[in-house]
Amino acid sequence: MSEKHAPMPGAESLAEPLRDRWSISVYDDQHTLSGEQVETLLHAAQWSPSAGNRQPWAFFVAQRGTPAHKALVEYLSRGNSRWVPRASAVFITAAQIAPDPEGEGPTEPAYSFYDLGQAAAHLTIQAHSMGLRVHQFNGFDTGALAEELGVPAWWRVMSGIAVGVHGDPAEVSERDAEREQRVRRRKPLRDIARGDTWAEPWDGLSTEL
Amino acid sequence: MSEKHAPMPGAESLAEPLRDRWSISVYDDQHTLSGEQVETLLHAAQWSPSAGNRQPWAFFVAQRGTPAHKALVEYLSRGNSRWVPRASAVFITAAQIAPDPEGEGPTEPAYSFYDLGQAAAHLTIQAHSMGLRVHQFNGFDTGALAEELGVPAWWRVMSGIAVGVHGDPAEVSERDAEREQRVRRRKPLRDIARGDTWAEPWDGLSTEL
Repeated sequence: MSEKHAPMPGAESLAEPLRDRWSISVYDDQHTLSGEQVETLLHAAQWSPSAGNRQPWAFFVAQRGTPAHKALVEYLSRGNSRWVPRASAVFITAAQIAPDPEGEGPTEPAYSFYDLGQAAAHLTIQAHSMGLRVHQFNGFDTGALAEELGVPAWWRVMSGIAVGVHGDPAEVSERDAEREQRVRRRKPLRDIARGDTWAEPWDGLSTEL
Repeated sequence: MSEKHAPMPGAESLAEPLRDRWSISVYDDQHTLSGEQVETLLHAAQWSPSAGNRQPWAFFVAQRGTPAHKALVEYLSRGNSRWVPRASAVFITAAQIAPDPEGEGPTEPAYSFYDLGQAAAHLTIQAHSMGLRVHQFNGFDTGALAEELGVPAWWRVMSGIAVGVHGDPAEVSERDAEREQRVRRRKPLRDIARGDTWAEPWDGLSTEL
């Protein structure tokens, strides 16, 4: 990794690119993605696993400067409007939450969100493998954007996946530049891993991390 | 990859282990995971991204033969009861869907499911990087198992992540052995990728896959 990130305690044993994956906040606003790169990222999402192979998700490809991108930027929260627009592209994600008028689709949305999360993770990991950097976000008016983009009522816009390359911190606000240097923390495994009941942590742990 | 899988058209451009990830149905029922392997898989989930770094998920570590594993096996659907019990371990996943009695936690569950999906994907990809094989499933009585394991009402059991190594197809039913040879299909990208509105496919596609 050319750019620095704060330590990730516990991640040392992971395979790349999981070991060094992190969410940058400083994008190079001159960089663009090729059509081929976009297509490869879509293939990564496409081949993620989904329950019953239903693939209950879709992605708007919003490259910087396109109408879809301009629409998104209008609905970003104030904090996200500082850094998101600089990314090369944003994949705007949507999950099918109810059957379509022909009766096709999920009767409840939980596994659509779960599977969309998997598809977003695969896209993100593929991007990192290609030397790109990713930051997912949901700080925007998803309902208003869905309406503007013509998303049917049986789908729900969920998140944006900003993709690009790392930029010059001197070009962004101090707050965004500083944000990248924050210490990275996670819950310790004892809070995540259960044993034979909910009340028992898994007894195989050798780490405090 | 030592074992064969059917072609995955469109996946050729992906980075490993995404390119060759697939869900096996024939596990070696003698293989066990070491504590260190389990811990590494948990670290992979731990370092997945989550909205606001909330990490709204937990995992039961159900290694073959443990009480948690026996409880799961009781509640498997008939189809899953043929192949799931042979895997070395099952990570039983749960997402926080409502605030706890202290008022901490999400007010709605959609992003908990999304983030749990990401954590499951990271665990799965890490396992493949370690030469392990993974098959996620949700064909079990999640509510009954949650009750038996003492999962609080503000959490929801969502899926199982079976982890192990590939076994001998001669040891399982013809149906499970055959299942691994099925042609693998996904929706074409034109059905997944939108352009500037929902009605417009993304116009950069160069593939029919």
